[in-house]
Amino acid sequence: MSERQTTAVDVSTARLEAFSDGVIAIIITIMVLDLKAPGQATAAALLAEWPTFLSYALSFLLIAIYWVNHRHVVRYTRRVSPGLLWANMLVLFTLSLIPLATAWLGDHLTSPVPNVVYGLVLIAGALSFLLLAEIVYRQNRGHPELAFAIHRERIKAMITLTAYAIITILSAFLPGAILAGSGLAALMYFTPTPADARPRPHRDS
Amino acid sequence: MSERQTTAVDVSTARLEAFSDGVIAIIITIMVLDLKAPGQATAAALLAEWPTFLSYALSFLLIAIYWVNHRHVVRYTRRVSPGLLWANMLVLFTLSLIPLATAWLGDHLTSPVPNVVYGLVLIAGALSFLLLAEIVYRQNRGHPELAFAIHRERIKAMITLTAYAIITILSAFLPGAILAGSGLAALMYFTPTPADARPRPHRDS
Amino acid sequence: MSERQTTAVDVSTARLEAFSDGVIAIIITIMVLDLKAPGQATAAALLAEWPTFLSYALSFLLIAIYWVNHRHVVRYTRRVSPGLLWANMLVLFTLSLIPLATAWLGDHLTSPVPNVVYGLVLIAGALSFLLLAEIVYRQNRGHPELAFAIHRERIKAMITLTAYAIITILSAFLPGAILAGSGLAALMYFTPTPADARPRPHRDS
Amino acid sequence: MSERQTTAVDVSTARLEAFSDGVIAIIITIMVLDLKAPGQATAAALLAEWPTFLSYALSFLLIAIYWVNHRHVVRYTRRVSPGLLWANMLVLFTLSLIPLATAWLGDHLTSPVPNVVYGLVLIAGALSFLLLAEIVYRQNRGHPELAFAIHRERIKAMITLTAYAIITILSAFLPGAILAGSGLAALMYFTPTPADARPRPHRDS
Repeated sequence: MSERQTTAVDVSTARLEAFSDGVIAIIITIMVLDLKAPGQATAAALLAEWPTFLSYALSFLLIAIYWVNHRHVVRYTRRVSPGLLWANMLVLFTLSLIPLATAWLGDHLTSPVPNVVYGLVLIAGALSFLLLAEIVYRQNRGHPELAFAIHRERIKAMITLTAYAIITILSAFLPGAILAGSGLAALMYFTPTPADARPRPHRDS
Repeated sequence: MSERQTTAVDVSTARLEAFSDGVIAIIITIMVLDLKAPGQATAAALLAEWPTFLSYALSFLLIAIYWVNHRHVVRYTRRVSPGLLWANMLVLFTLSLIPLATAWLGDHLTSPVPNVVYGLVLIAGALSFLLLAEIVYRQNRGHPELAFAIHRERIKAMITLTAYAIITILSAFLPGAILAGSGLAALMYFTPTPADARPRPHRDS
Repeated sequence: MSERQTTAVDVSTARLEAFSDGVIAIIITIMVLDLKAPGQATAAALLAEWPTFLSYALSFLLIAIYWVNHRHVVRYTRRVSPGLLWANMLVLFTLSLIPLATAWLGDHLTSPVPNVVYGLVLIAGALSFLLLAEIVYRQNRGHPELAFAIHRERIKAMITLTAYAIITILSAFLPGAILAGSGLAALMYFTPTPADARPRPHRDS
Repeated sequence: MSERQTTAVDVSTARLEAFSDGVIAIIITIMVLDLKAPGQATAAALLAEWPTFLSYALSFLLIAIYWVNHRHVVRYTRRVSPGLLWANMLVLFTLSLIPLATAWLGDHLTSPVPNVVYGLVLIAGALSFLLLAEIVYRQNRGHPELAFAIHRERIKAMITLTAYAIITILSAFLPGAILAGSGLAALMYFTPTPADARPRPHRDS
């Protein structure tokens, strides 16, 4: 059979991906509803909303990064086990808390509590993603090359987790630092990974 | 033809699954909109919202369980009959009432009526899911092994239904019991079923 | 090549279907947001909302019927022409007005104007769906059997259109009639059509 | 292998398309939430909302055009590179700002600032789409015929961009011009392109 055909949609994974995409797409878009049109039709009224817009742009970026990495990890999935399904649900649940945390942060950028809560949501997201990556990693143990690719995702997730923890503690004393800090942590993901350009692995090989 | 190809997407089922995924994904995420950011930037203001957060987390769990079980049952579908389509619509309709029931329960956790209404919505959901499982079961009557797998889903759904009924009656006298109770009923679904790990059945066999 | 393979996903149609499913799923679910939890935790407060709930249930039903019929018609599509794309967009646009019309009707069930406006939205939806069915019909002219199946959809759409027009005029004098009336028009669609059970037609035949 | 099979879903592109579809479907539908039902049940109350409805209809049209063109360009994609993924995210981000800009414009149609802001959002959307088209164009350089088809998309995007820029400047002095102007720019896309009817190109050729 040609390589082409091995890339055919595997129904189980396909539905997992489609459902995750649906939830992530809604989360990424639902935050728009918290962007209220300013009451007055002036540039000053619009600019006064900058903390809201900055929080929105950063949260969009963070969820977009999660989607890209989710795509990365899930395509190495060999088997949709119950553990994988529920780890994935946990990722979606923690991501679903980002719009609320974003809205609260946008309203109170200089207060420590909303900053720390935003940080804790990011940490919970990174932890649940690490759990998902871990499960997929274990499924690929017998395939050194693939396992290595996922291993890199795990390392990335662990570094991000550490960065989030430091920034969260910092933002308790320096409100607003969470925005700058998680923006920096986000940048790491823009380093192009050669794995991205590689063809999808054979699931049956 | 290899087994691999028999897992190719069946368009009729695919669109039923995709549409259901879309609706469930939106329901699961729409409840986030009812999570209002606290007015004040304090931990106390956030913690005061605990009934809302608990209702949200539980409803997320319940809908996630429905999705996992929907996925389970639908992959045994042999034919997208009008009856199946409309039973599926009924499941989606009852699930669509969960966000409203959740929001009401979150606001009035200690009042009996919102507790009972939440319970009735759960019962309606379980009933319509049972109807869906029944239709798929009848399509597989001639295939003992598959029929048995779906039969287990039916048993599960019936136990859940009974649990919901008891908890609903109980919560009329013990407001708040619905949360604890349906949480327990949910746990049942975490017992891993070996069927989940099995390859998708051949539709044409 | 076996018949099985001819049911493989045609990418152009697949994306048209997926996008339409997404929009319809959101419309069907977005109306939930207009279902506000009653302010008080009593059964009376819940029951007082009956016009809102009835409008919601009916609109859910109507959009579900559109989805089922959309699925019916689109699977006979041979070519995703620009005309088809835009007729489809028109269907989605008119469906997107249903939540607003529903919310307005739910608030003012006894006033003539929201009744007539709801009726006009239904008429616009039926008209745009008829246009879509017409385009697909013309693509299948050379295939008498398929053309006949779509022709039946057109007849159905025309009868619905006439029913909607009569009910709309009636509801200007008998506010509330639109609910009962469009409910009746909806029933017609529950007559099982044998075509539904037939295998998807060969696109290349 | 037959041509039929070469149109099989490429998983990487499929998930990119599905996710984009999800986000665009939500954006197109989310604007419905800003269409508030008039407080009074009169035709006058409904007609008084005309700037809101006109803004909605135009924004629906604009996003529909983006979807059609996105579909056009993405089907020529050869490789889901990180650059492509992020250019696509940028398109989705700029589109996600349209509902807010639409709501603000609908409330203050005669004020210059909301007009100019709406224009700037359109310009940002056209720019990010041009970037996406550029990346796909470069992937097809070695295939003159395909490159030419995408090149036409680029030309279109550049003309639109210029039209948006002129209309935006104009609307600073003539508030409301942005609606009429971008409506005109939209019309250009209705000229049927023969490419649309052509079969999807072989990705492997």
